[in-house]
Amino acid sequence: MNYPNGKKSSSLVNRNKIKKTTTFSNRGMTLEEDINNTNMYYRTTNAAIIHKKPTPVQIVNVDYPKRSAAVIKEAYFKQASTTDYNGIYRGKYIDFEAKETKNKTSFPLSNVHEHQINHMRSVVEHEGICFILVRFASYNQTFFFPALKLFPYWDSQFNSGRKSIPYQDIKNNGIEVPVHYPAQVDYLKVIDQLYF
Amino acid sequence: MNYPNGKKSSSLVNRNKIKKTTTFSNRGMTLEEDINNTNMYYRTTNAAIIHKKPTPVQIVNVDYPKRSAAVIKEAYFKQASTTDYNGIYRGKYIDFEAKETKNKTSFPLSNVHEHQINHMRSVVEHEGICFILVRFASYNQTFFFPALKLFPYWDSQFNSGRKSIPYQDIKNNGIEVPVHYPAQVDYLKVIDQLYF
Repeated sequence: MNYPNGKKSSSLVNRNKIKKTTTFSNRGMTLEEDINNTNMYYRTTNAAIIHKKPTPVQIVNVDYPKRSAAVIKEAYFKQASTTDYNGIYRGKYIDFEAKETKNKTSFPLSNVHEHQINHMRSVVEHEGICFILVRFASYNQTFFFPALKLFPYWDSQFNSGRKSIPYQDIKNNGIEVPVHYPAQVDYLKVIDQLYF
Repeated sequence: MNYPNGKKSSSLVNRNKIKKTTTFSNRGMTLEEDINNTNMYYRTTNAAIIHKKPTPVQIVNVDYPKRSAAVIKEAYFKQASTTDYNGIYRGKYIDFEAKETKNKTSFPLSNVHEHQINHMRSVVEHEGICFILVRFASYNQTFFFPALKLFPYWDSQFNSGRKSIPYQDIKNNGIEVPVHYPAQVDYLKVIDQLYF
């Protein structure tokens, strides 16, 4: 097999040489997968009913072949107007967004969109339990950060404040989510602690 | 322009001739659109935060052209594992499914899937407000039918019971949803009446 640099590869040598690059989407998958597994565990044990919403897609063109399933031939990703996860736990409405960052010193606010913030404000106003889960990939730590604590950081960026939340602030004002098997991101433990 | 039957069309003549066929998906759109408009009104007036979940799609192939948006080239519709709508109202978790039928005498249970029923059972168990909105297109009536009343009909079909809910049962045991402009399917009124 030839690699773009023109050198022949030995799969054995290369396996050790290939730098394990964590792409953005892979990192996203990891936290997402952990949360999906956790939610499935919560549902199976009837602890909570929380699902990830499907990815919003604008469907433009669909093919309906005879005797087989419809095929979407052209579609585009749409920006989500809400957070990704919601459901019910102990009678309360639960609503959250999950974000992973490679950044070691802060969580860039560009990871969140304004309409998501607006949605979270509404949820808080309606007495839902609303938060973000922030994973710092480098430390393999995931923090529960209540929406109410997120809003001041969001707002201050428009008043010449910083465009990110320092890691230390998240560590001090958030709660690290415990990792249990099979609840790999056991955020209900944090909810128990904070809201009940 | 030539039509598949080989006859030339005159767009003017044809416009009048084309029978307005209401396809299944069109009918679905109508109730769906009414609910989407109602939910938007609820959100705008800050009465409730309820959204329709995106259509679940299995994405198989995505094209990433340079300098333009990613294009989904192959994808398939997946069956929803939950109901279509959820959110929060007066601090309570709201969860429902909306179905329209052309049938004049009954609502066929084939409109609902077993995993949706399972999901609704879990929501009820966790003290969410859970129901279906059933529109009888012929009468232009939309009924609020609590999930708890739906379950016995669902179960009885597997014990040689009927595979549909008679219109009269829905009329007698459900509540007709009032039509207000701009809340075209004003189901919060029914929730106020039943749960608060």
